[in-house]
Order: sequence, then C-alpha cells, then structure tokens
Amino acid sequence: MPEQGYDITPAEGGVLAPAGFLAAGVAAGIKKRPGALDVCILDAGRPVPASAVFTLNTMAAPPVEVSRAAVADGQLRAWVVNAGNANACTGEQGLSDALAMADATAAALGCDSSDIGVASTGVIGVPLPVDRVCGGIRSAVSVLGTTAEQGEAAAAAIMTTDTFVKEAAFRAEVDGTVYTVGGMAKGSGMIEPNMATMLAFITTDAPLTPDACRALLADAADRTFNRITVDGDSSTNDTCALMASGAAGDGPVGPGHPHLPAIEAALIRTCGELARMVVRDGEGATKLIEVTVRGAHTGKDAVAAAREIANSPLFKTALFGRDANWGRVAMALGNSGAVIDPSKVEIVFAGITTCKEGTAVPFSEEDASGALARDEVEVTVDLHLGTGEATVLTCDLTYDYVRINGEYRT
Amino acid sequence: MPEQGYDITPAEGGVLAPAGFLAAGVAAGIKKRPGALDVCILDAGRPVPASAVFTLNTMAAPPVEVSRAAVADGQLRAWVVNAGNANACTGEQGLSDALAMADATAAALGCDSSDIGVASTGVIGVPLPVDRVCGGIRSAVSVLGTTAEQGEAAAAAIMTTDTFVKEAAFRAEVDGTVYTVGGMAKGSGMIEPNMATMLAFITTDAPLTPDACRALLADAADRTFNRITVDGDSSTNDTCALMASGAAGDGPVGPGHPHLPAIEAALIRTCGELARMVVRDGEGATKLIEVTVRGAHTGKDAVAAAREIANSPLFKTALFGRDANWGRVAMALGNSGAVIDPSKVEIVFAGITTCKEGTAVPFSEEDASGALARDEVEVTVDLHLGTGEATVLTCDLTYDYVRINGEYRT
Repeated sequence: MPEQGYDITPAEGGVLAPAGFLAAGVAAGIKKRPGALDVCILDAGRPVPASAVFTLNTMAAPPVEVSRAAVADGQLRAWVVNAGNANACTGEQGLSDALAMADATAAALGCDSSDIGVASTGVIGVPLPVDRVCGGIRSAVSVLGTTAEQGEAAAAAIMTTDTFVKEAAFRAEVDGTVYTVGGMAKGSGMIEPNMATMLAFITTDAPLTPDACRALLADAADRTFNRITVDGDSSTNDTCALMASGAAGDGPVGPGHPHLPAIEAALIRTCGELARMVVRDGEGATKLIEVTVRGAHTGKDAVAAAREIANSPLFKTALFGRDANWGRVAMALGNSGAVIDPSKVEIVFAGITTCKEGTAVPFSEEDASGALARDEVEVTVDLHLGTGEATVLTCDLTYDYVRINGEYRT
Repeated sequence: MPEQGYDITPAEGGVLAPAGFLAAGVAAGIKKRPGALDVCILDAGRPVPASAVFTLNTMAAPPVEVSRAAVADGQLRAWVVNAGNANACTGEQGLSDALAMADATAAALGCDSSDIGVASTGVIGVPLPVDRVCGGIRSAVSVLGTTAEQGEAAAAAIMTTDTFVKEAAFRAEVDGTVYTVGGMAKGSGMIEPNMATMLAFITTDAPLTPDACRALLADAADRTFNRITVDGDSSTNDTCALMASGAAGDGPVGPGHPHLPAIEAALIRTCGELARMVVRDGEGATKLIEVTVRGAHTGKDAVAAAREIANSPLFKTALFGRDANWGRVAMALGNSGAVIDPSKVEIVFAGITTCKEGTAVPFSEEDASGALARDEVEVTVDLHLGTGEATVLTCDLTYDYVRINGEYRT
C-alpha cells in the first residue's frame, strides 16, 4: 500500500462497475441513422445522494434548468438522457418537453419526477420529438440491467459525433474497504446544425453524503473536465453528474471522513480518464496535447496561462504542423493575465528546450518535428516565479476540424 | 454641409496625404526575399505632438519598451520600423538593438534619440541583424520624400505576410478649414517561425495638442483596431501611433476645441478603413464578417458579446461553410458574460432571420447559403434589452488558415 494509505486500480464496467446501478440504452428514432441508440437511463433503484455541475453558459438549455432544480435537494434516483436533439433554444415548449421526459421516466420507474435528472444533446433550435423520446424511455426502463453490454449501450446512447464509446472505472482500497467509481462521457462533437456538448455521468458505491457528493464532484470536475478544451466554446447543455449508491462500506462518508481522500482519488482518476478521451476524440484531432505551466506565481495564474496556450488557434495549428513554435506560446503567455517575468520564461516542446530565460535556445528543427509527430505531446512552460502548477489538455487544429465544422448542411 | 457641422471625404496618399511629413521604404536585407522593402522611416521634420497605444501583452518586445518611453512626453519626430524580424524574446541584447535603431535614426536625421519611436515585426526569438537595419536606416533617411510612391514604399516596408499594401486617408472640412488624416497599417500575418503583429501609423496636419493626440488616438483605436479579430491572439509588438504636424489650421486644437469632432471623425474613418483591410487580409480568409450586437443592456455588454461571437472558431468555420449556424451564435452569446434574456434573442444572418424570441425561425437553407457566399457578410444579434450596440469585424476560419499556420517550417 502506498504511503498515502490507499490504493487505486483500474476496473471494468463503466457506470455499472460500482454496485447498485442499472442502465440501458435504446433506439428511439431521434438520431437520423436507423437503429442508432439515442435514449439512455441510469437508475440507482431508489433516491440516493447525488450532485451535478452544469454549463455556465447563460443560454442554458431547458433540461439543465430541470436538472438543476431536481438535484438541489442533494438526491436523485435516475438520469434520463437523449441524444440527437439538444432541446436548446426551444423556449417554453422546450421546458415543458424536458419536464415530460422527467415525468415519463418517473412513471416508468415508479418514483417522483423531482428525483429525475434530465440531459439532452444534439441538434439545437429544433423542437424535441417528445413522443418518440417518451416511447424510448418506456422501452429503456423495461430493459434496465447490470451487464457490461447494458452499460456500454447506455454510454453509446449519449453519443453524438463521438467516434468511440467513453467509459472508465477505478477502484479505491482503503483500510480493507473497496470502493468503486465508474463513469461514461460524451465529447464535444458537433452535429448538424450544431453545437458542442460535454456530458458525463459518474457512479460510485461509496456511501457518500450529499455534502460529500457536492464537494467531491465540484473539485474533480474542476481538475479534469474544466482542464480540457477543444475549441474554447462551452455549450448550452454541458452536464457532469454523480450518484452514490452506498452499496459498499459501512456507513455514511461525509466531509472529514478518513476514507474520503481515497474515494476522491478514484473519482479524479475516473473523470481524468474520461476527460482525456473527450480530447482525444476532439473533432479532426490528430494528437492530444498536454500543456503544463509550472513555477507560476499562483495556481490560478498557472491555470490561466495553460488555458490561454491550449486555446490559441495559432498554437494548435502549429502543433498540427509539428512546429515547435515557442513564439506562439510566449505570445499566449503574455495574453493570459498571469504574472510573468519575460527574462525567466522557459519553454519545452516534447522534451526539447526551445526558450530559456526568455530567449531562443538553438535546437534541431528536424528532431522537434520528429518528436511532435507522436500522437501525444507535452508542452511545458516554467515561469520560474513560484510553485503554481496546472495542466490543460487540448488537441491540434486541423484541416478536418474545418471540414467537419464548415461543411454545408445540405 | 451635414448637420453635425463638418464634412468628411476620402483622400489619396496614405501617411503623406497630410502636409508636414516625409517617408521612405528601403530594402536592407532583413527579409529573406532579395530586394524586399523592410526598413521604413516616417519623419515629421521636427518634434511634433504625438501619441501611441501598444500591445497589452506582458511579453511586450523591446521596441515597444523603447517607444513607450519615447512618446511619454507627448512628442516624437519620427518612427523607424523594420519588418522581417520582430526583435521579440531577445532579452537584453534586444533592448540594446532597439535603442541602436533609435540612435541610428536620430543621428541620420540630426535629432535626439528620445524623439524616435521604434517598431519591429517579423520572426521572433532571433537576434536583430542590427548592422543591416542601421544601414537601411541611413539609406532610408537619404531618400525621404513626399511623393505617393515614397508613401507606398514606406507602407510596403512594414508588411510581413500581408498580401497588399494598406493605406487610407480622409479629409475633414469644418468652418472653412480643411484637415487631413492619413495612415498605413500592416495586418496580423504570421511569418516563420513566428507571430501576428498589427502596426498602424497615422499622420495628421491638424495642430493637435499632445493631450488631444492621446485622447483621440485612444478612442479611435478602441473603436476600430480593438474591434477586429483574426484569431483572438494579440502580439508582443502591436503598435498604433499618431503624429500631428500642425501644418493645417490656425492654432492649437486641444480638448474642447470646436474643430476636434471633425478631426476625430476623419481619424476614426482612417483607422476604420485600415482595420477593415487588416481583417480582409486575414490569413486564409475568404470573407469579411461584420458581427453587430445591438439592444444590449450596456455598450460594454455589446462589445463583449460581439467579440465572443467573432472569436468563436465554430462560428468562423460555419461561415466558411456558408452555414447560417445560429446555434453557434447563441452559444457564444451565452459564454460572453453579457446580460441575456434567452427568450428575447434575435439572430439575423445576411438579412435572413434565423432565430427570434430565442427560438428557431424557419428559413431556406439554400437562400442562406447563397447569401453567405458573398465576400462581405453581416451577422446581427438583437438582445432586445437596452441600447448598447457594437460591431466587431472578423474573417472566416478556412483550410488555408490551417495550411498557412500549420505548415512545416522547413
């Protein structure tokens, strides 16, 4: 056992890895492709401690409003998700449709509508085909189960332009007790005519209190999903949720409980893995780029600087071209608002130092181009000012990004 | 004469349109292409009232530091500019090289170094070939003149990857007095291995006081150059400067002078025209996009919302694809921090209403695609909340942008 007193190991099974959950994914005819899975239910069997974080976009979609209200009391029984239609920019009708999804799910499960979270992703500005969605909800509830296939079907039913299913799970062992955390996510793919949405649903069998659910998820999301960027835009529907079944361990784990750090570590690993998959599946991406800023005056400065670099189209395009273009990193640093002493800046591309004490260091362009050909690349900046450190993941900006997002809707 | 009491008309001649200035552009061997003009002098013949605004990038290049100090007393005699090397990220040596440029210019003109502004644009992190630059300065000073050709040579000598020379001039007639404002600019083109730099030099024969120079330029830059975006990155070298020869009119024109609004109008027209050219020449751009947000709660909200839309890669890529993708506009609005009532939002692409009261309005995709094929496109948002209004110019994000910025440096 490592010195921090717990052990984290990977597990199989995504959202169904922890005991106490049922899932299903069915085809309800919302996506255009016949037979595509597009309605998902994730059910804890009874109201359990839960939390969620949502988009800060002020044009938040109706399902976000409904879920925000449902989770406010710190418990949920189930999430219902549809893909193919985001129910965004749909006005009063959209709100009534989102409530109808909660009602249909509650009726099928036999619980209160106020214990149902609702999420939608897909085309925006088009009224939800609510009858088809509710039909899908009823058939999904009728096939709920605990097999790996059912978990994978659920994860597939929340995808839009994602090219692969995103599932992860980790186990934490602490003082002889084993807790499991599992999750599924979809990435920021656009679909005609429209918009990126990041959805993530995390489950655990740890007996977390609602307070612990809230604190752990906020922190984990901040360190993982909030540290990735594909194009810097955040959607109207972004949702990240946690439910805790309590099937493992002996009793409530609240703030201050000695097992909390272990559970938190498993949660962060799970969210981190999912976040990495989302970037890897970024539209048109050929490589994952890990931007680390260390030696910053504060942690906040480190995040701001790493995010500014990771969002710079010039930087992202240079990496597509395997160009160790440290000038663009310097420029982004200077625009980040972080405290900077230009004479101390050090910039390293894939292990190759390109800039030290703010000025150029000779390096072989050929070596750099070779190192940047890999499909995972680290770019590290040391500001040599303090101890602040942060990593933000992004992907390169490619011809395919332009093609995917620019092609005619016809 | 229109009711505001003055008349603005276009003029020829760029920076040499106003009386009292001399210019030259020569080839000094800084750019790789043999014979390419790369050193420019713009001379007022004696120290005159002047002002400048600089990049807010904290990695500001040494020439910016030198110029900031020189213009602090409100007067300058001349600007010296080189293209092909930005003298950025060059440390102590860079500062000494920028001072050497000012010294060489002052020696050749016979004035104080403290009356010389210095600007550089081009490759970063490479020491300035200061001997060649100073040689260029001496030959430029020896051929200073007032012809249109000399003005155009000066404007060409500040270009990097710009595809055309950017000059503009306007005349203001007020109470029988004619004032002229002229200018030249270079756009945010990158060069290997690189970075974007925006440079603009404005001249006027109006007898502005240093105070008036400062106030007018700050306001004009804020309304024009600060309302354009190619990729949202601002460089280490951005500089926008004004010199006032006083060759026209009767006496000092300071704050509160009745002629000031006319001069300001000509200045804004000149800067606006140059800013438009910079966007039009954006890397790989196929069209200019004019994003207007009106009905905002405040003017600041309008600027924030218009800028967020204009900087969204998803929006810019959609326009390349002639896609009236109002969902991406709604998303950007929601991320802008502006006060928004989603149920009031109206979005119009090239005259075609796509969203009203926050929900979709049916429109012909074919008509929209046709309208968006033009090389200038207006996208207008009405928030229906107040009187705040702002326009930001941008260009589309294309395959060529990726090619230009992503190609190997070899």
